[in-house]
Amino acid sequence: MTAASDDSFHVFDTTLRDGAQREGINLTVADKLNIARHLDDFGVGFIEGGWPGANPRDTEFFARAAGELDLKHATLVAFGATRRPGAKAVDDPQVNALLESGAPVVTLVAKSHDRHVELALRTTLEENLEMVRDTVAYLVAQGRRVFVDCEHFFDGYRANPQYATSVVAAAHGAGASVVVLCDTNGGMLPRQVHDVVARVLADTGARIGMHAQDDTGCAVANTLAAVDAGATHVQCTANGYGERVGNANLFPVTAALELKHELRVLPEGALGEMTRISHAIAEIVNLPSSTHQPYVGVSAFAHKAGLHASAIKVDPDLYQHIDPERVGNTMRMLVSDMAGRASIELKGKELGIDLGGDRELVGRVVDRVKERELKGYTYEAADASFALLLRDELQRGRPEGPARFFRTESWRAITEDRPDGSHANEATVKLWAKGERIVATAEGNGPVNALDRALRVALERIYPQLGAFSLVDYRVRILEGGSGTDSTTRVLITTSDGAAEWSTVGVAANVIAASWQALEDACAYGLLRAGLEPQD
Amino acid sequence: MTAASDDSFHVFDTTLRDGAQREGINLTVADKLNIARHLDDFGVGFIEGGWPGANPRDTEFFARAAGELDLKHATLVAFGATRRPGAKAVDDPQVNALLESGAPVVTLVAKSHDRHVELALRTTLEENLEMVRDTVAYLVAQGRRVFVDCEHFFDGYRANPQYATSVVAAAHGAGASVVVLCDTNGGMLPRQVHDVVARVLADTGARIGMHAQDDTGCAVANTLAAVDAGATHVQCTANGYGERVGNANLFPVTAALELKHELRVLPEGALGEMTRISHAIAEIVNLPSSTHQPYVGVSAFAHKAGLHASAIKVDPDLYQHIDPERVGNTMRMLVSDMAGRASIELKGKELGIDLGGDRELVGRVVDRVKERELKGYTYEAADASFALLLRDELQRGRPEGPARFFRTESWRAITEDRPDGSHANEATVKLWAKGERIVATAEGNGPVNALDRALRVALERIYPQLGAFSLVDYRVRILEGGSGTDSTTRVLITTSDGAAEWSTVGVAANVIAASWQALEDACAYGLLRAGLEPQD
Repeated sequence: MTAASDDSFHVFDTTLRDGAQREGINLTVADKLNIARHLDDFGVGFIEGGWPGANPRDTEFFARAAGELDLKHATLVAFGATRRPGAKAVDDPQVNALLESGAPVVTLVAKSHDRHVELALRTTLEENLEMVRDTVAYLVAQGRRVFVDCEHFFDGYRANPQYATSVVAAAHGAGASVVVLCDTNGGMLPRQVHDVVARVLADTGARIGMHAQDDTGCAVANTLAAVDAGATHVQCTANGYGERVGNANLFPVTAALELKHELRVLPEGALGEMTRISHAIAEIVNLPSSTHQPYVGVSAFAHKAGLHASAIKVDPDLYQHIDPERVGNTMRMLVSDMAGRASIELKGKELGIDLGGDRELVGRVVDRVKERELKGYTYEAADASFALLLRDELQRGRPEGPARFFRTESWRAITEDRPDGSHANEATVKLWAKGERIVATAEGNGPVNALDRALRVALERIYPQLGAFSLVDYRVRILEGGSGTDSTTRVLITTSDGAAEWSTVGVAANVIAASWQALEDACAYGLLRAGLEPQD
Repeated sequence: MTAASDDSFHVFDTTLRDGAQREGINLTVADKLNIARHLDDFGVGFIEGGWPGANPRDTEFFARAAGELDLKHATLVAFGATRRPGAKAVDDPQVNALLESGAPVVTLVAKSHDRHVELALRTTLEENLEMVRDTVAYLVAQGRRVFVDCEHFFDGYRANPQYATSVVAAAHGAGASVVVLCDTNGGMLPRQVHDVVARVLADTGARIGMHAQDDTGCAVANTLAAVDAGATHVQCTANGYGERVGNANLFPVTAALELKHELRVLPEGALGEMTRISHAIAEIVNLPSSTHQPYVGVSAFAHKAGLHASAIKVDPDLYQHIDPERVGNTMRMLVSDMAGRASIELKGKELGIDLGGDRELVGRVVDRVKERELKGYTYEAADASFALLLRDELQRGRPEGPARFFRTESWRAITEDRPDGSHANEATVKLWAKGERIVATAEGNGPVNALDRALRVALERIYPQLGAFSLVDYRVRILEGGSGTDSTTRVLITTSDGAAEWSTVGVAANVIAASWQALEDACAYGLLRAGLEPQD
């Protein structure tokens, strides 16, 4: 048995609840379900999904999770508060919404700082203890496992250690299986966390968890300090998302526990998925992945070639604290043209295009990529556009230039807002394919959708394979944010043929023109994938 | 005397040397001089300027620093390496370049990990000790103060503690005034750092410094752990810039020392300049300021949860770990569907709209925000759209509904890609304003730009104030990424009138329609700001 497969250590994720409080994150129910699947793949033990009853989105999440989430590792957790002062838990609709959510585990937030009880809850210290006891006991009697989050615990402990400890003891005595000490304001440093956790553990005998916020830049270290002091439950969020500065970041916390503490807290093989999952979650919440995030950032194992280049060749382990492959990341050499060439060759191989060690060709591709990236293109997330670029350079030798499935003469997109509030979108495309000129028009729910449809209408007779393609994702990023609608626009499109997905990129001053480029690449790559060869 | 004004504690900044190794940073000499002035304003004790002799830029920096930098607090430091194996320090041009730089303090990097000595330096362990002794003694004899950076110290200590310790002893014995233990690969955790620093201090009696890298996400905590163990010199970089993940961040390190350890390491009043200086340095290195950086990020004291907002009204100190003004930052309230009545009221106050404690009205606004956010709107970053929503609800009682500066009848946007590759964008708008029907057409570099211009053309005669408005930022987010171009699109627009900026939001299936909503709000809010009142 390892901590990953029994109950001895909990990796508890609260990305969907506390993480969602980060400024700029606004998750739909579909986003939350999608993130939950990634967290489950990563092997966290608990996924806190939200506060059922507090807002319609969280209620819907729990309703849909029952049918749509098929969790392999994680247990779903509903978050809520202890009952209101002066009432009974059994009569409290907020408490009953937790039961109705169907989640097998409930986290209850409880006040543990005396002034918060008096000023925020406006009740007595004794009634707050009774609220904890009553609510925990009621939920436990209803067959739920209960964790209690002691909000503002560390500040409360400083102000009134007896009272803060009595809240832990009340929760523990009423049947809570973990009592989580929260540094809600995030002001603690590791030595303080270590002291307090050790003392509370000794004084109450409760199983202790840690919830750290990153306001001092020490959330990861505070979490590890609590584990050092005996905590066996850690609350984290993916990429450290959370209110203000953020929460303890799930990835460096689990990496430190697994790789530095040598504690097995994740399922076999999960650690190697860390980089992919971190980036996937960043995509879903639509925030750029932090390039400098520990372990998973694209710069986390990037070396500026220079002083140590020759020694890195002899023994890379002398220059990195772990082998980046253990967390699914890779070492990168910066600046050096050699590294560029090597990665282009590797990438070609990955895409099934043999560059045959042709140094001149590889050099041309490196230059082309650099020049295009300077304009705003990115090929990291647009493999299909990169494969087309490689093909073009391979065929540069042909006197007639690279072959094409089709060539665009022109297109036009019209969006009209009518007096009745409805919208009409119409696109016309003029193309050449196999020597034939084709004009086609289609409507859509937006200008890009209309262009996408017109492109298929135009080409489907010649390339019936297009019928299987569908656009599954569409993203827009504005580069150089300072210049308003004059900015450069980058569009990333993901297309599926039912079996596989591929991504393409377009860049232009104009969102419609950038989308068109990505649509053209999406069709061309899909036809290549279907085994066709372009003929002009 | 405080640590800030005597020699008892060193805040040593290496932004200009180690920080400059961050991927994406490329500093000119003028940039370096400019950053040095900000660091001096902040009151660091030492500014490591670069490696004179290693590259022309660093040599020039020291040459110009002598005449152009008038440092109030800081001492300039030159960085270099111990002499080559088998030669003498007095004959080593690299060592003499350090003297020629004129810097009163020199930091020498020395190997302290046995395998690095053998594999990277390709010399013997004894010769490496001799290189340390000879170089330190030579520079001290020339009147320089010498600090020695023991590279890869912690990994070296794990591999061979006797040898690593002997390097510290050699530097100390030859006259180095501080020996800095470097976690060069950044793999350490605070408990390890604390142990090693305490042991080296006990074994050598040398004055110990700490240089931490952030590869485990613990650089700040590692620096503080070293101080707890007796280190009295900390090496940091502004905003944590540095190779790979980065270095220990100067701002949270000094904030923790001053505010949590109650150690005075900066001059009087400097801490309050922290936020300004962090942002100024980010501007100079041309990287966006991290919104979530501890203490100085714009989100560092932003509150979103409704749970907290009601109590924040009572006592803000209950919900923040320090008063943000102590580090020159401010508290902000965010509006979101998690927000309750209290944060709506606070936000209204911030925007100058008195909701007068009208519970029914505030409740209506809360419901409206929740309903709109479910559709994809977000008001956190769209204050102006939120202010318009508040106004609408205030005026709901009027029989004719809320007044408007203008009403849209319809609009149309056409984007055309021509056979020559150029694009034409034309928009026509049909509006009613002050009882008049107006039709206007304009061109632009994209469909949204064309619509923006057409809107101004239509209204500028009636509202000349529009002439001062300009669109300064335009962002698009696609929500529900699973459904391709059928997704909901959210557009955020920032508009300026030269004096202030405001942000508005639009949401629709269609990027153009979403943009139009945000443009309408941008005009309406700008006209309100200009002191106009809408009349239908």
